[in-house]
Amino acid sequence: MIKVGVVGGTGYTGVELLRLLVMHPQVSLEVVTSRAEQGMPVSSLYPNLRGHTDLCFVEPSLESLSQCDLVFFATPNGIAMQQVPDLLAAGVKVIDLAADFRLKDPAQWKQWYGMEHACHELLAEAVYGLPEVNREQIAAARLVANPGCYPTAVQLGLLPLLEAGVVDPRSLVADTKSGVSGAGRQAKIDALLCEASESFKAYGVSGHRHLPEIEQGLTAISRARGHTTAPELTFVPHLTPMIRGIHATLYASLTQEVEDLQALFEQRYRDEQFVDVMPAGSLPETRSVRGANLCRIALYRPQGRNRVVVLSVIDNLVKGAAGQAVQNMNIMFGLNEKSGLDMVALMP
Amino acid sequence: MIKVGVVGGTGYTGVELLRLLVMHPQVSLEVVTSRAEQGMPVSSLYPNLRGHTDLCFVEPSLESLSQCDLVFFATPNGIAMQQVPDLLAAGVKVIDLAADFRLKDPAQWKQWYGMEHACHELLAEAVYGLPEVNREQIAAARLVANPGCYPTAVQLGLLPLLEAGVVDPRSLVADTKSGVSGAGRQAKIDALLCEASESFKAYGVSGHRHLPEIEQGLTAISRARGHTTAPELTFVPHLTPMIRGIHATLYASLTQEVEDLQALFEQRYRDEQFVDVMPAGSLPETRSVRGANLCRIALYRPQGRNRVVVLSVIDNLVKGAAGQAVQNMNIMFGLNEKSGLDMVALMP
Amino acid sequence: MIKVGVVGGTGYTGVELLRLLVMHPQVSLEVVTSRAEQGMPVSSLYPNLRGHTDLCFVEPSLESLSQCDLVFFATPNGIAMQQVPDLLAAGVKVIDLAADFRLKDPAQWKQWYGMEHACHELLAEAVYGLPEVNREQIAAARLVANPGCYPTAVQLGLLPLLEAGVVDPRSLVADTKSGVSGAGRQAKIDALLCEASESFKAYGVSGHRHLPEIEQGLTAISRARGHTTAPELTFVPHLTPMIRGIHATLYASLTQEVEDLQALFEQRYRDEQFVDVMPAGSLPETRSVRGANLCRIALYRPQGRNRVVVLSVIDNLVKGAAGQAVQNMNIMFGLNEKSGLDMVALMP
Amino acid sequence: MIKVGVVGGTGYTGVELLRLLVMHPQVSLEVVTSRAEQGMPVSSLYPNLRGHTDLCFVEPSLESLSQCDLVFFATPNGIAMQQVPDLLAAGVKVIDLAADFRLKDPAQWKQWYGMEHACHELLAEAVYGLPEVNREQIAAARLVANPGCYPTAVQLGLLPLLEAGVVDPRSLVADTKSGVSGAGRQAKIDALLCEASESFKAYGVSGHRHLPEIEQGLTAISRARGHTTAPELTFVPHLTPMIRGIHATLYASLTQEVEDLQALFEQRYRDEQFVDVMPAGSLPETRSVRGANLCRIALYRPQGRNRVVVLSVIDNLVKGAAGQAVQNMNIMFGLNEKSGLDMVALMP
Repeated sequence: MIKVGVVGGTGYTGVELLRLLVMHPQVSLEVVTSRAEQGMPVSSLYPNLRGHTDLCFVEPSLESLSQCDLVFFATPNGIAMQQVPDLLAAGVKVIDLAADFRLKDPAQWKQWYGMEHACHELLAEAVYGLPEVNREQIAAARLVANPGCYPTAVQLGLLPLLEAGVVDPRSLVADTKSGVSGAGRQAKIDALLCEASESFKAYGVSGHRHLPEIEQGLTAISRARGHTTAPELTFVPHLTPMIRGIHATLYASLTQEVEDLQALFEQRYRDEQFVDVMPAGSLPETRSVRGANLCRIALYRPQGRNRVVVLSVIDNLVKGAAGQAVQNMNIMFGLNEKSGLDMVALMP
Repeated sequence: MIKVGVVGGTGYTGVELLRLLVMHPQVSLEVVTSRAEQGMPVSSLYPNLRGHTDLCFVEPSLESLSQCDLVFFATPNGIAMQQVPDLLAAGVKVIDLAADFRLKDPAQWKQWYGMEHACHELLAEAVYGLPEVNREQIAAARLVANPGCYPTAVQLGLLPLLEAGVVDPRSLVADTKSGVSGAGRQAKIDALLCEASESFKAYGVSGHRHLPEIEQGLTAISRARGHTTAPELTFVPHLTPMIRGIHATLYASLTQEVEDLQALFEQRYRDEQFVDVMPAGSLPETRSVRGANLCRIALYRPQGRNRVVVLSVIDNLVKGAAGQAVQNMNIMFGLNEKSGLDMVALMP
Repeated sequence: MIKVGVVGGTGYTGVELLRLLVMHPQVSLEVVTSRAEQGMPVSSLYPNLRGHTDLCFVEPSLESLSQCDLVFFATPNGIAMQQVPDLLAAGVKVIDLAADFRLKDPAQWKQWYGMEHACHELLAEAVYGLPEVNREQIAAARLVANPGCYPTAVQLGLLPLLEAGVVDPRSLVADTKSGVSGAGRQAKIDALLCEASESFKAYGVSGHRHLPEIEQGLTAISRARGHTTAPELTFVPHLTPMIRGIHATLYASLTQEVEDLQALFEQRYRDEQFVDVMPAGSLPETRSVRGANLCRIALYRPQGRNRVVVLSVIDNLVKGAAGQAVQNMNIMFGLNEKSGLDMVALMP
Repeated sequence: MIKVGVVGGTGYTGVELLRLLVMHPQVSLEVVTSRAEQGMPVSSLYPNLRGHTDLCFVEPSLESLSQCDLVFFATPNGIAMQQVPDLLAAGVKVIDLAADFRLKDPAQWKQWYGMEHACHELLAEAVYGLPEVNREQIAAARLVANPGCYPTAVQLGLLPLLEAGVVDPRSLVADTKSGVSGAGRQAKIDALLCEASESFKAYGVSGHRHLPEIEQGLTAISRARGHTTAPELTFVPHLTPMIRGIHATLYASLTQEVEDLQALFEQRYRDEQFVDVMPAGSLPETRSVRGANLCRIALYRPQGRNRVVVLSVIDNLVKGAAGQAVQNMNIMFGLNEKSGLDMVALMP
């Protein structure tokens, strides 16, 4: 049994992580921290956990956390980078579900997150936890930066095209739609039911923090195959009136004739258990992955013109956050990658 | 491994049953029938099952079904009663998720369901599958009538009061609210998103089929304790704009002083794994049982007056249908009652 | 043209009032106050008002408000009672959409609202603004206490029964369901889309502020007809996952045979333009009054037993708040009661 | 008063048209037809119209319709083209809200709508009813083809760019999202609340009927300014879980430096009452136009790169259908273009 701690278990990513961990057959959940809620039973805040855990929230402390084999950070940005060095020094592995270790360039981090990075030296060591790209490095990592939700859906949708070098890397458009849980469990007017339901809007059009993360990832993918032009993405996120789910609609211009796009994707993900390339003509729905650690993808080339359309859906809280974190844990600890992640999506 | 068949797997009850069965560690799903969809892979209709089953829908036939240990009927009312006698004769056990075997009186069945009952002789034998009331009979049964969704929520909420004989059995009111999945997966105008969302309405006020089922159950409960007045219920169901979930708000007039209502309920359900009497002052939310086989209950006595209010919530597709059916299966086959049913509700 | 001011125009009641006022043919909107948003154009906060008003929020001041013929308070409870005496003294009429002047007994007000009432002397003068009960007093009033949303739906549903004296006044149950806009435009976790959608729950079961208001109103109605037993109501409010709408399901036990309940209601509301007694067998939907100043009612007597069920629906922001306030204004200023209120509900 | 008839008043476009027409001060609604519902009061099907019209549905007949000055067709595609020639011959003007007269090329019509066009000769005469482009022709027209919902949002968003000739006409992408009312009031599984809520999906990716309509419109706009390259659009529609609203996110590559995109749009729509170019940095929400005849637009040029992003929102049933039809009527009959259309959007 892997002894696991969760720092910051009160948000939506936190509770989803707890849901997965209490059902995981090889995990022993040891400690869940929350400064604000310390002393309260976890199941008082999240009644779905009644009967599944007796833990109470405790104040975060190195002492309790360092008894764990692995600590997940489900904290706001800027918290993990304060505490990770001590935990690593104590021999504890870390998966950060926030953004602290996602960007490699501390200057870029400061620009997008508005604060100085607290441990530049770990940025190079941290492995970007997208298993479909970095599985081997994850297996050997002490510190994994769990990808953002949009970056997961967008990168998995575009990477076969970029690896194959068949699209113009400057033609990329990602029109993404997210359920409201992406905004977190915070008391904000914008996320009220009366503001966010029965309406649809774009946000962050002039610049969203996931843009540099995606472009960094796409550039790495592209360079690894020897392509020299840096990918450039127009990224427009939208809020859609539902709780869970991301739908990324991706556009790219072909630079050469591709015989069989469908086969290109199927081959790329043949051995991946959490990426499902659907049959040609499919229309993936976000609900088909609700609660499941899965990215479903479909491909189109409308009117036979030279623009490819990729549809990519995930549950933002699972493959876009907590599920991918558990997948990374499974890889880091040599478990079956599907362990604790083999659930069927809830539909309807 | 129990060999299991599902007749009529295309509705919401059917797909929820399939979700639970493919994840059940002691079940081998052998056959799923659908006249309309025969030949189609089950996972084409329900993409959440992609990767979890390779079965295709087949035409229902005694030959294929009689190789099963147990057959579930998730068919419209009036189908199971045609086929059950042959299956029982072939040594196959049956759980009917429709209404065919719920009412004991064939005349009453005809009155409410508008057709002659096809096998009067089995009505007496069939066991009403509410484990919290009839666990022993279920264990010994060949044929279980799985309760309706409203009847489950209402009976579990009222039975401690009726067993204790502390309320006037003619004072009962059940104001119930159901998500739209209760209407099934049928192309009906009323259940369109544009008709049913952003609105709330009552329906079936002059008489709903679950009324005789509930009154039959409450009467049995009451009589078993020697109470002679037959319970009389005012039952008003409502449609609430969400997919899953039933919230029953139950009212009853106390006929005597009860020292501790909370204790009365806690004691009654002390050994029940799928009924959660919440702490005093709780407000159960339907989402806290979404996807889980659980009834959560809370009690109030507003202003200290003599009217008790019971709040009782279930997921209509789980504890109100497919989950309770699996619970009954576990009991019938001597398995751990929680086997395959130990999942955490999906929240948010 | 009536010169009108609105104090506290940033909440949902406020914006709905502004929507109605800018379209009202006999109203000139002079001033909208908000301490928090002063200087901001009203249409920046509420883009639906772009092109309909150029007003900016201003700080509330007696000077600007006293130039109005009428001031509406759409403020939190406890604000209006501070400012109303000065306005009345300046000859300005007032309609308070908050609770400050709804209860007649200052001790009861303190008990339920947690603060000392600031102007006991006005409690007697204030007219409770339910036009279907108090039309004449409203016409003559300087100060109108606009009823709460639940109290409007519940009282209009019960009053024909109580006036006729045909039900047991101690048998009353009001099981009410409200859309989330009833919680106001405040950043509260409970009202987030991810908390309140796809779920249903009761709240305030042990005691809700609208209970004393309703019981006060029902008692007045009852006493006016010479009935001596004070009505006693079990009141259980619920939150339903939609924006607008209240559905009250009301239960009462008949104490005598009533020949024609339908006729009783139709006669009572024959001359009322904003109460629609629907044909027998109807099932009023909240969406049928969305955006409209209307209460629709239907009646049942299930199984011919002695319990009456009344279904009563309103839009909580219109007939339950802003629309009723405009109706009261029309009455106070001798306008056609329908002026500015003759819109068709938005459906679907 | 203009005497008006509506053919096919039972769908969502029909009821929205009726809502606008019964409130229009210069319209007398004479006849509403429905073969299926003849004899039924219109307000039985749509209770929001109770008290606003006493009309019953009648069978469509030339006799009754030819007494009107104007007939609206809110019928399925392929109906209007059968009846329009006779009505025009009888001196009745026609606005068709279906697709029968939108495409100029009968071969293209047959290709996309799967039937032979019944009156080729009227295709040339019919005026495409987008007032912001064709106001003068509409004023003189006998027959107006009311635009589709997506085509309205997309063309209004792109036309300033194409008229100015500043973008590559082959770079166009329209990623559009529609509420479910766009699918009409038909009993289809896909549009059930349980299928369409809490999920997001694309549809019609390989080819949607609005694509040729949009490309025809954009080509006309482009050619009128002397640009020779025919616009080519990648058009991906999506279904978003809400009732009303379309959000079009439009992408185009600049071919030249544009000093002030914002000013380009503001100038183009300066005199348009139903197009609102919002201030720079705005994020239009569909709810801000719910129930209103308005297109709101905002512009972005993310990261200063050469791709323009236009956000364009409408209510699909109003500016995307019934409201635009009333706007066209106002123009055809020389009324104030805002007559009957000056309502405030319902928000929240």
